[in-house]
Amino acid sequence: MKRITLLATLMLAVASVVAQQNIGMVDVATVSPCVVDNDVEFLLDAPNAGQVLLRADWMQAPVPMTRRESDNKWYYKSENLAPGLYTYTYNVDGTTIIDPSSIYSMRDVGQLFTYFIISGDYADNYMIQDIPHGTVSQQWYDSSAMGYARRLTIYTPAGYETGNRSYPVLYLLHGMGGDETAWNELGRASVILDNLIAAGKAEPMIVVMPNGNVAQQAAPGSSPRGLVAVNFHEPRTCNGEYESAFGEIIDFVDTHYRTHRDAAHRAIAGLSMGGYHSYYISANMPTMFRYVGLFSPAINARASHPIYSDMDAKLVTLLDNGLSLYWIAIGKDDFLYDEVSQLRAHLTAMQFPFTYRESTLGHQWSNWRLYLTEFLPLLFKK
Amino acid sequence: MKRITLLATLMLAVASVVAQQNIGMVDVATVSPCVVDNDVEFLLDAPNAGQVLLRADWMQAPVPMTRRESDNKWYYKSENLAPGLYTYTYNVDGTTIIDPSSIYSMRDVGQLFTYFIISGDYADNYMIQDIPHGTVSQQWYDSSAMGYARRLTIYTPAGYETGNRSYPVLYLLHGMGGDETAWNELGRASVILDNLIAAGKAEPMIVVMPNGNVAQQAAPGSSPRGLVAVNFHEPRTCNGEYESAFGEIIDFVDTHYRTHRDAAHRAIAGLSMGGYHSYYISANMPTMFRYVGLFSPAINARASHPIYSDMDAKLVTLLDNGLSLYWIAIGKDDFLYDEVSQLRAHLTAMQFPFTYRESTLGHQWSNWRLYLTEFLPLLFKK
Repeated sequence: MKRITLLATLMLAVASVVAQQNIGMVDVATVSPCVVDNDVEFLLDAPNAGQVLLRADWMQAPVPMTRRESDNKWYYKSENLAPGLYTYTYNVDGTTIIDPSSIYSMRDVGQLFTYFIISGDYADNYMIQDIPHGTVSQQWYDSSAMGYARRLTIYTPAGYETGNRSYPVLYLLHGMGGDETAWNELGRASVILDNLIAAGKAEPMIVVMPNGNVAQQAAPGSSPRGLVAVNFHEPRTCNGEYESAFGEIIDFVDTHYRTHRDAAHRAIAGLSMGGYHSYYISANMPTMFRYVGLFSPAINARASHPIYSDMDAKLVTLLDNGLSLYWIAIGKDDFLYDEVSQLRAHLTAMQFPFTYRESTLGHQWSNWRLYLTEFLPLLFKK
Repeated sequence: MKRITLLATLMLAVASVVAQQNIGMVDVATVSPCVVDNDVEFLLDAPNAGQVLLRADWMQAPVPMTRRESDNKWYYKSENLAPGLYTYTYNVDGTTIIDPSSIYSMRDVGQLFTYFIISGDYADNYMIQDIPHGTVSQQWYDSSAMGYARRLTIYTPAGYETGNRSYPVLYLLHGMGGDETAWNELGRASVILDNLIAAGKAEPMIVVMPNGNVAQQAAPGSSPRGLVAVNFHEPRTCNGEYESAFGEIIDFVDTHYRTHRDAAHRAIAGLSMGGYHSYYISANMPTMFRYVGLFSPAINARASHPIYSDMDAKLVTLLDNGLSLYWIAIGKDDFLYDEVSQLRAHLTAMQFPFTYRESTLGHQWSNWRLYLTEFLPLLFKK
């Protein structure tokens, strides 16, 4: 009864005092998205809008929502969605907004999206389960190459803090416009790792997610730059600087964490620009990694730099040092498909062994989450 | 030139392929908020809206925005704002949205808010500066009292990972409707700590931010419950359970981090319900803490439980064990003001020494950030 009194007191406070914070709640009059099994209803209260579009990552083009007779709200229903994590926005008379009825949003480059999950199948790996969880840390290292501190996201598996053993390390790199937060937020990396490790499908490992934009110290809003607009193409990107200095990140991790410090226990993988980085870094550090993953990678050098030269000879050296896995994945509709096809043809002609995974869809996070889920079980098995 | 080519390629991709992700950008046609010194302009493109309100935490009531002649956009300007971190939302014909032109949002309980910072004065402590940064970790501990894993946010100061020294610990508790993410996100705790420590104003310390809702394993969206609606008043809150089991959190921290394990190096503080928790936990563990901070606290027991009984005797024991600081703060307009006044009168009558800080405004994060900024320099000085 006392608890009810407190609640009543605070509720009165909500109603009466505008300046009282910590008491905000979404207006529950509009529930959206409403997920029931594989069907999802979307609802938006925008009484004066002339047109509302739903733009969603499971549809090729935005679809118009319709005004529902019963309550004058904008409505759309997607049926029989396959398991997965999905994102969407509304466009109201030309202005893009996230769903005002949901608090679950993600930032991708310079835009927010509302997200939800359809459970089942591989998407259960994207859901937080009642299993042991690893730790996710935002940590800064001093980059002597760049002359300033830079931020990393680091995942340590459940049991890391209480044990003494050392772990293998995966370096997991984001794409253009991304940053050190992308793989864990958009990519659900720590959730996927927790699930695969708990199920015995992946080896317990440390995962390091650095910031691949040399000009950034950290993600937008998390650095001394302040609350700046997001720059899709940061200066000093894909010019060899980041790849050349990657050794200092490995040094930092090896001196601050209990790692196995040999190539058999190191992997590097990345999406898009992160695939580009992984391709060149692994070839230029041929004794550092035995596992390489290129997810929807850009391949062709975007600048002139020694790190991008003599790649054939470097790849041969990488192979001669005992590569265990060279894994390439891309979607059929990806705009980098042809670039990757050329790489595959070239590697085949060189007799360079690799595993190829072709998926549906294009250059998008639904593929990158899937690739990570498939790639992790292949690591550190030897 | 190569970089320009890549950019052009990707830009074309943006234009031509809807399903390509990782390439989203906010429409820069509407820049909002636009902060120039202490003036802020707000702009919203909502061509068919009948009424748009700006609801902001620096104004007592929502204000109507006006339609600007030149471009038909909704406009408002706030002038001469004092330094601080501010939050706001728009209300468009009854529907609350965050600013579609900004990616900088915070969740408070069940609602998102757009935020910005006016620099200067104490608000510089809320801005990320080019100084050494601590690490922020999301970590899980097994609660034997509750029978399930629960998540903590832990701040370790710059230098923790590279050194061997031990640190004092502040336990920093959130309010009702909050969770283990609240103090670091809404409260800017790690930013404030970095700044005060780098300036020599606060001792380097570990700060532990647990989840005070017994029924929650972690913040909404971060537990096996999934993407649920936010429950402002969680079950099993303010009933003595959390306070009784607080020792297991201290044990976890003392066994996993390099801490000084004595009362002279432990502090506990919290806001609102977290002040309530701090008040009862410190009194019931009289040899555990020498520093206590009650920020806009609820005080009167909300349930019947031994932890809430015999408080006078418990406070005397706490004092006798050598309390260094008992710090109480509240805003003049806070709805808990009378409750705190009664506590002050009672403590004075008991000759229980405390420091009192009365601020302007009410039950809101602008006060709690300020209180933290003032409280941290007082800790661990003996």
